[in-house]
Amino acid sequence: MKPLIFILLVMTFNSAYSQESDSISQVIIKIEKSALERWNKGDPSGFLEISAKDVVYFDPFTEQRLDGLDKLANLYNSIRGQIKVDKYDMINPNVQSVKNMAVLTYNLISVSGDSIHKWNCTEVYRIDHKKWKIIQTHWSLTKPEMKN
Amino acid sequence: MKPLIFILLVMTFNSAYSQESDSISQVIIKIEKSALERWNKGDPSGFLEISAKDVVYFDPFTEQRLDGLDKLANLYNSIRGQIKVDKYDMINPNVQSVKNMAVLTYNLISVSGDSIHKWNCTEVYRIDHKKWKIIQTHWSLTKPEMKN
Repeated sequence: MKPLIFILLVMTFNSAYSQESDSISQVIIKIEKSALERWNKGDPSGFLEISAKDVVYFDPFTEQRLDGLDKLANLYNSIRGQIKVDKYDMINPNVQSVKNMAVLTYNLISVSGDSIHKWNCTEVYRIDHKKWKIIQTHWSLTKPEMKN
Repeated sequence: MKPLIFILLVMTFNSAYSQESDSISQVIIKIEKSALERWNKGDPSGFLEISAKDVVYFDPFTEQRLDGLDKLANLYNSIRGQIKVDKYDMINPNVQSVKNMAVLTYNLISVSGDSIHKWNCTEVYRIDHKKWKIIQTHWSLTKPEMKN
């Protein structure tokens, strides 16, 4: 019976691990959507509240990576109230995780009036004081139409 | 003496932790540079060899996130031999890590003849079978010059 017991133990372990990572995935997607929905109404505080002190940040409009929550807060506060997204679609969110860190990736479609914007997004979350916090955000445009 | 012993213990722990994360940082930057230098000579296998089976991938030319090593290999093999970068500068590489996962971010300048390309890069590494493997790559253009 030894092999059977071993197999059952491995199955139990794998199933527990898979449940844990499913649960991390659900939690993180929920946190992200909640911040995104505030963002879409012009309120960047949702993202600021879940970003860690050492967060690093890329978007298509910054010359270099931004380092740290203070710089990110300056940037976000400069556009507070200016974003209005009517509809969004978080396409195919995917979470890859270990116990204390996880990476969420998705494509995003944002609709503002007649404009449709398509984005690639990578968020890296880490457990800080028992809460998931963003330590890296990377926004880029999906297939941007370039001048040259 | 108790408080002093406690302080010394905390200092030792912090110093050991800091050394460990410094060492992860050095290892990961070395792995990345090595793959990048092969890439710059038209050889994408450096990146393929250090990418995990469940790697996910964004670049400015793909319509959606690519999922999995097979799809990434198809993409990379389609441009094998076509990249020639004469000089590169990995600007301000930064590694944020826990024991089994780490995120490397940097700005990259690539020079090919008279062309200069500027990139934002996020790589997420995870320990797979005792080796650091990339599970997420996000390349985007720094301040792309858009048509509109």
